[in-house]
Amino acid sequence: MLTVAIANARDPKAAAGAPPSPAPGRVVSIYSEVQTNRIDYPLPLPSVLRSPFKVVDGPKSSAAGNPDEIAKLFPNLFGQPSAILVPTAVPPSEMSQKLKVGVVLSGGQAPGGHNVICGIFDYLQGRSKGSTLYGFKGGPAGIMRGKYEELTAEYVYPYRNQGGFDMIRSGRDKIETPEQFKQAEETVLKLDLDGLVVIGGDDSNTNACLLAENFRSKNMKTQVIGCPKTIDGDLKCKEVPASFGFDTACKIYAEMIGNVMVDARSTGKYYHFVRLMGRAASHITLECALQTHPNITIIGEEVQQLISELNEILAHDIVDEGGLWKNKLREQSRALFDFLPKAIQDQLMLERDPHGNVQVAKIETEKMLISMVETELEKRRDEGKYKGQFKGQSHFFGYEGRCGLPTNFDAMYCYALGYAAGVLLHAGKTGLITSVANLAAPVEEWTVGGTALTSLMDVERRHGKFKPVIKKAMVELEGAPFKKFASERDEWAIKNRYISPGPVQFFGPASNEINHTLLLELGAQA
Amino acid sequence: MLTVAIANARDPKAAAGAPPSPAPGRVVSIYSEVQTNRIDYPLPLPSVLRSPFKVVDGPKSSAAGNPDEIAKLFPNLFGQPSAILVPTAVPPSEMSQKLKVGVVLSGGQAPGGHNVICGIFDYLQGRSKGSTLYGFKGGPAGIMRGKYEELTAEYVYPYRNQGGFDMIRSGRDKIETPEQFKQAEETVLKLDLDGLVVIGGDDSNTNACLLAENFRSKNMKTQVIGCPKTIDGDLKCKEVPASFGFDTACKIYAEMIGNVMVDARSTGKYYHFVRLMGRAASHITLECALQTHPNITIIGEEVQQLISELNEILAHDIVDEGGLWKNKLREQSRALFDFLPKAIQDQLMLERDPHGNVQVAKIETEKMLISMVETELEKRRDEGKYKGQFKGQSHFFGYEGRCGLPTNFDAMYCYALGYAAGVLLHAGKTGLITSVANLAAPVEEWTVGGTALTSLMDVERRHGKFKPVIKKAMVELEGAPFKKFASERDEWAIKNRYISPGPVQFFGPASNEINHTLLLELGAQA
Repeated sequence: MLTVAIANARDPKAAAGAPPSPAPGRVVSIYSEVQTNRIDYPLPLPSVLRSPFKVVDGPKSSAAGNPDEIAKLFPNLFGQPSAILVPTAVPPSEMSQKLKVGVVLSGGQAPGGHNVICGIFDYLQGRSKGSTLYGFKGGPAGIMRGKYEELTAEYVYPYRNQGGFDMIRSGRDKIETPEQFKQAEETVLKLDLDGLVVIGGDDSNTNACLLAENFRSKNMKTQVIGCPKTIDGDLKCKEVPASFGFDTACKIYAEMIGNVMVDARSTGKYYHFVRLMGRAASHITLECALQTHPNITIIGEEVQQLISELNEILAHDIVDEGGLWKNKLREQSRALFDFLPKAIQDQLMLERDPHGNVQVAKIETEKMLISMVETELEKRRDEGKYKGQFKGQSHFFGYEGRCGLPTNFDAMYCYALGYAAGVLLHAGKTGLITSVANLAAPVEEWTVGGTALTSLMDVERRHGKFKPVIKKAMVELEGAPFKKFASERDEWAIKNRYISPGPVQFFGPASNEINHTLLLELGAQA
Repeated sequence: MLTVAIANARDPKAAAGAPPSPAPGRVVSIYSEVQTNRIDYPLPLPSVLRSPFKVVDGPKSSAAGNPDEIAKLFPNLFGQPSAILVPTAVPPSEMSQKLKVGVVLSGGQAPGGHNVICGIFDYLQGRSKGSTLYGFKGGPAGIMRGKYEELTAEYVYPYRNQGGFDMIRSGRDKIETPEQFKQAEETVLKLDLDGLVVIGGDDSNTNACLLAENFRSKNMKTQVIGCPKTIDGDLKCKEVPASFGFDTACKIYAEMIGNVMVDARSTGKYYHFVRLMGRAASHITLECALQTHPNITIIGEEVQQLISELNEILAHDIVDEGGLWKNKLREQSRALFDFLPKAIQDQLMLERDPHGNVQVAKIETEKMLISMVETELEKRRDEGKYKGQFKGQSHFFGYEGRCGLPTNFDAMYCYALGYAAGVLLHAGKTGLITSVANLAAPVEEWTVGGTALTSLMDVERRHGKFKPVIKKAMVELEGAPFKKFASERDEWAIKNRYISPGPVQFFGPASNEINHTLLLELGAQA
């Protein structure tokens, strides 16, 4: 019996001891040495934030799709320009007022969230003395229920550079119904909030924009600024090149994958099948593949492209025995189809749900693949074509990565995001998402600004109504990261080119590497 | 679909590209930056190994149990003294001969194995110029089949401070039958081996001792030295205070556990149940608990003690409704029993296999516990005593830890173990296990020597014959690590005292911490 059971903090008795003590003196006793060392790790700011700057507006924005519908949904905010910080000789005088600001963590955890809050806090302390920062507890529900904590220097200090969202905790509630909007209004009025920072993914940022529109439509002073959070990496665009947490999560998963690879190479006993946390977008899997070079990597977007084409063919064409039908596939899809084991090919050709779609969701893919390989090899064994031994070992890496200590990149990026949110609020902006860019350069050269949330939006038709949505950034099959992967995977498949990234380092030469996806995407833009 | 599948190296096509290139120039291209940086990380040696030393014998040894039977099984080796290195002014002249040495990795991987080999190699290069080192491939089977590789400086170099056993790979075969001993003899005669180093756990070291006895009984010159390897930490005694790999594996598991704890604290959504790799001994679980402070930790040895007492009571006494029978339990067992949920208490009282034992083996304990908690809470809900929400999330951490990059401690400890093995062979010793001690002190002050393998042995009766076995070191309920845990766990259960150790660091202030178990055990000895 080798089990460690960890209760969570919902139990009120347990929760009593949950947060690290806000008094720095006591932190050390319940923090590990690495955690303690991280607290005082210096966070450099982009140089534009270290000297006087002004906030300059860009051109009027549009939407990611259906601008007419977005304009109708956001009559007060649609078309807002993006904002960019530029150095100036003297700080503008309006930047000296005191602010009351709330902050909320929304949705699944991502390493670095605490540093966004620290960035907001430090900005207010440094540039807007006498300001107050409130942390809404347990996600958007904290706004609706008016549950908050005033964030003081002592309260915030122990969370600097720490993983998790435990400073104020997160939640998945949404502010959606008229009653819920009313509750939110009451809370921000009661606290006399000048601003609210929503740290979240695509849904939460859509929600942030709806709140901003709502407050503006009622002539309330409360501005709303979003920050891009998600380990999935699917909230990004040109102006917001990365969502925070992706860098850390991928590095933790890649550490585990690299260790398993070394294990495989050392014994030859198992074939390892790894599934990684995530939803529709496969950025995490692609990044981990670029970091570790597995023999086979399945990128959902590629499979999805193949499936769409197969759906077309199955609906309209004759699938001939000779395989001439395959010529109707695009070159890349044809190559993928031919690459797949026959058993998977057969499944793709045969099984459709009532809507004509392949049913692949909600499967423990790693276990399904092992059993498919077993079946295929048994068949080959019966035919006398296979004499080997196959033992599959499945892995799922998920929770381990969401709450790790943020990498130096995520720590610095988040701190800049938080600082930027403070700046944008101070400059009177609302309905923007913080935009920190030029990330392949040293921190000093990062650019800082904000982008209209409406410019990231399209609409979806739900229950007969248009709903605004921030378009999820999927893996682009024409993008630089996928192309790099596609150009190397044949070699990885045949030769073992495993790379073991090792544990995230906070000191030393490897501590400031940034992930392949970001580097390749930025390179492709340049 | 988010799956990364990793084939292993058994596929000959895949294996062709498996080992990192022996040419240092090419290593960098398939190593991560962290791996590359590790290669040249300097490995300090204990000061006794850096200057001239002599090997001094201690008193005659006995056995861990049944010395008469051990003496019969090892007529040539029984009673050998331990050896200890002491500084001397001039190196003894017999230390200058050239040696031919073989090395084999036996059993499951443990971080640091490569450094043992590097230590042997560097010793031979430095102190016995012109010597040859052969690596037997794929474990003891490599000895029997005569499969080996000559280990040159170029061959060894890329594996310095790297995880895994992929330099020569490992295997689980044993040299047991007379035919197998014959094969081993043929191989060592063919290679004209002066010595063989067996890097392995308790079974492999027992096997090493049987080989040593066999070679000695036939007047063959080949000496055999064992090195203590196992992440389980169950091969240890006063002279051999630690088996290598335990430190790294525990730190990797503790990193994951710490991350999951922060996750739990951040959302309050799940109760996490973690199972860790290992066999009967619970050192890994105990160490991880000391590093991370879970709410509940189940230590197999403690449960085993309770079960033995329950077995006695159920066999001989009446279990009265009033619970008076419980007074027959020892105080600690009574406390554990009362601590357990009623459902588990009931199971312990009722279910016995045909031999009268509780059936707990081969269960995915983490999933079993989740379902038991669910059942119990449903019952309480029906009774109106529970209104909460319980969601269990299970984890198994195993392969991720066996092949991680060795911590600084394991890297240095293994290097010293390898060096020690070279010294012992050079000094004409056989049937010893390397003994590097005083490990809580700086490396310079570590002591170096060897201990008679027969002194660690007892016998077990199998198929009517006595078989020698090295007694597994289980968690001692009276030992310092368990006592420390027992004194704190009540607080951990009620208050969340989670600690997140973070990723293993190779630089900086946290990089030279050693594990709690070793520190507490050494402290208790002092």
